[in-house]
Amino acid sequence: MDTQNKIIIVGAGLCGSLLAIRLAQRNFNVTVYEKRPDMRGGKQAAGRSINLALSARGLLALDSAGLKSAILEKCIPMRGRMIHAPGETPFLSPYSGRSGDYINSVSRPGLNTALVEAADRYSQISLNFNTPVIDVDLQHAKIRYKQNGQLLEDQGAIVIGTDGAGSAVRRSMMGQSPELLFNYSQDFLRHGYKELSIRAADDGGWQIEKEVLHIWPRGNFMIIALPNLDGSFTLTMFHPFDSEVGFDSLKTEDAVQAFFERYYPTLLPYIPEYQEEFAANPVGTLGTIKCYPWQAYGKALIMGDASHAIVPFYGQGMNASLEDVRIFDGILAQYAPDWDKVFTLFQDERKANADAIADLAIDNFFEMRDRVDDLNFIRKRKIELELEQQFPDYYSKYSLVTFRPELPYSEAMKLGRKQDEFLLDICSRDGFDEIPLAEYYQRLKSLT
Amino acid sequence: MDTQNKIIIVGAGLCGSLLAIRLAQRNFNVTVYEKRPDMRGGKQAAGRSINLALSARGLLALDSAGLKSAILEKCIPMRGRMIHAPGETPFLSPYSGRSGDYINSVSRPGLNTALVEAADRYSQISLNFNTPVIDVDLQHAKIRYKQNGQLLEDQGAIVIGTDGAGSAVRRSMMGQSPELLFNYSQDFLRHGYKELSIRAADDGGWQIEKEVLHIWPRGNFMIIALPNLDGSFTLTMFHPFDSEVGFDSLKTEDAVQAFFERYYPTLLPYIPEYQEEFAANPVGTLGTIKCYPWQAYGKALIMGDASHAIVPFYGQGMNASLEDVRIFDGILAQYAPDWDKVFTLFQDERKANADAIADLAIDNFFEMRDRVDDLNFIRKRKIELELEQQFPDYYSKYSLVTFRPELPYSEAMKLGRKQDEFLLDICSRDGFDEIPLAEYYQRLKSLT
Repeated sequence: MDTQNKIIIVGAGLCGSLLAIRLAQRNFNVTVYEKRPDMRGGKQAAGRSINLALSARGLLALDSAGLKSAILEKCIPMRGRMIHAPGETPFLSPYSGRSGDYINSVSRPGLNTALVEAADRYSQISLNFNTPVIDVDLQHAKIRYKQNGQLLEDQGAIVIGTDGAGSAVRRSMMGQSPELLFNYSQDFLRHGYKELSIRAADDGGWQIEKEVLHIWPRGNFMIIALPNLDGSFTLTMFHPFDSEVGFDSLKTEDAVQAFFERYYPTLLPYIPEYQEEFAANPVGTLGTIKCYPWQAYGKALIMGDASHAIVPFYGQGMNASLEDVRIFDGILAQYAPDWDKVFTLFQDERKANADAIADLAIDNFFEMRDRVDDLNFIRKRKIELELEQQFPDYYSKYSLVTFRPELPYSEAMKLGRKQDEFLLDICSRDGFDEIPLAEYYQRLKSLT
Repeated sequence: MDTQNKIIIVGAGLCGSLLAIRLAQRNFNVTVYEKRPDMRGGKQAAGRSINLALSARGLLALDSAGLKSAILEKCIPMRGRMIHAPGETPFLSPYSGRSGDYINSVSRPGLNTALVEAADRYSQISLNFNTPVIDVDLQHAKIRYKQNGQLLEDQGAIVIGTDGAGSAVRRSMMGQSPELLFNYSQDFLRHGYKELSIRAADDGGWQIEKEVLHIWPRGNFMIIALPNLDGSFTLTMFHPFDSEVGFDSLKTEDAVQAFFERYYPTLLPYIPEYQEEFAANPVGTLGTIKCYPWQAYGKALIMGDASHAIVPFYGQGMNASLEDVRIFDGILAQYAPDWDKVFTLFQDERKANADAIADLAIDNFFEMRDRVDDLNFIRKRKIELELEQQFPDYYSKYSLVTFRPELPYSEAMKLGRKQDEFLLDICSRDGFDEIPLAEYYQRLKSLT
């Protein structure tokens, strides 16, 4: 095989498999190394972040590879948040005032399998599973990987690491920190997560409202539920490690039972197996990883979670990683095979946007935790939805991030924050509800 | 040996050897593992940060182990900065308006050798050189190290890593990031450094003014010089990698010559061997490392550069590391052997102070680079020195950090920044020089 035309991709997750497809469509030869088994075999890790919200940015990226409609068939639309506040009737808070705006519940293994199947149809792509990459000789785009207990090597024109938050390619960059002036940070929240589930009804249907994202907000913690195609829901419990009811304290069945009975009584009838699941499923951590540069020597690049892992509170982790592929593809179309230029332009365009969505996701964690009951926030949300209904070209911060895929995250953040500041200020004053909607609209529009 | 009373220290640098001495003085058994050779053999790495400024915080820590006067004999006092601005007569900018305030030039290997010699006089201390620690079983305070090509183990009641910016103990904590919720960041400046030197005069004296820190400021870069006991000066060139005259461009003798002739003409007569030294000495990087927690399981702790490496622009890196020992020793005196408590109290007290001096050092880099010609800064400095002369209980920000060793860095930063803000504001106004000094004093004192 011609090394000059060969691209090595490390990691066949969502980002890596979409990238492989786009590169094959541009007639590069692609060799993919994935440490996990081929998930088409049906095996997958239990209790680990297996439900995701696919929204406009991810869909636009999938569309660029001609995969949007096929993937949408595997999704369930979610039009808003169904909020299960303690002692109140659940109510729906739409994601947008525009009826066409919605996000999509999709299973990570389902989506990943579909992308791997699509990749496997290209003769230019060679897929290798059960082949963990040990390290990368960055200057020479040479990898060392393990296969059947043997340590082997491969070399391409370039290596792209799409190997997630624990990236081996990034680890090799870290190993050359002084030479690359490699900046890096990892920040954990003192909250973790655990997955639970609601089974399908006996007739195969959904036991609770299907086309929404359910939230049981409880101040410092919450549970969310996303619908699956088979009638089940995947629940994720976002929970502190060290409060008096934190994970570190819920060590006995009695403690777990008392906790659920006190905080989630209306959910309990739907999760009869919660004790077994609570005991069996691991607690995951929630961290933000930032680094820079993302490329080394014009020979190696990291993308997706490998270069910017974020917390899940904006529903944008996967979308940002898929968007990486779309942006990279656009630059590559112009400048390949000048990889040094492609990589440099990519990291320079993308870094500020990756930082922006990372920061927005952290903001949302604190907002969901501390502000969900805040009167000014509730007022603001009401005005935003009315604005979006009456003025379809108005986008709230959430909508800018979620439903305007052509707008870079950094610009969505900047404009969205200005709008929030303006609205929160007004909502804290008397008479905020006497201002005509059209005046809000004009004043917000002047912020752009 | 009684494991319950045995403390393993990884790293026999300045922090590690002083810590060993304090622990031996408290009658613990201490085993020290150091990857480098015994520097009492006289070998040392060339061209690597071998000159340091020892000031009040470091001296107070040395004093707690009874070593202050012995170490001061190895120092040369520096009473201020001798500023060699282009085309101007060099002038002295004192560090303080108080004549008793000065900092001390000391050679790192000289100081380290003195501390290792002092440590070796304690029967409770066992020193092992050429023994790199590979990793640490944090839960069991067990280390694996290499000696004569063999992989060996040792176990103590606790392990303390004082093994510098590339700490192996910290690396083991990183390896357990999710379990420890280990936050970490490394940030490099896009400036590096290279060492040069001025030889002793033929009569063994100093060719330029001895008891000062010399600076040749040149906007985006500078050279500093610290005096050595043998009549020589160690020069450090702080310099960008990638400006048009950056390290990356100074690749030929002609380029180096043209650069020095243009920017450092008055220095050239003192450095006849600059071409050889420039070619031979490595370029070092300048980075900040922050992390948290510093302890794991009440069994392992990191201190000094291992937990908080900082850039050298406040002259506090070594002083902060020695201060770590003093603070740790105070907590240990109260709570040992409840190591979990000792470690937790130490990291909780010390983290904010380590962050403060890290941030102050970065601030100073930008201040030295961007503000050295700023009229308001020059006015402020003049007033500060006059204040310190007339009101000995007034301390500028620099003096709070450098000459008030009992004041935590975070408090020095907070008060110092308030003072700076106040003075810079006034110095930017007309009539600032008509205000009586006593009024400045009163208003600054009210900030405390």
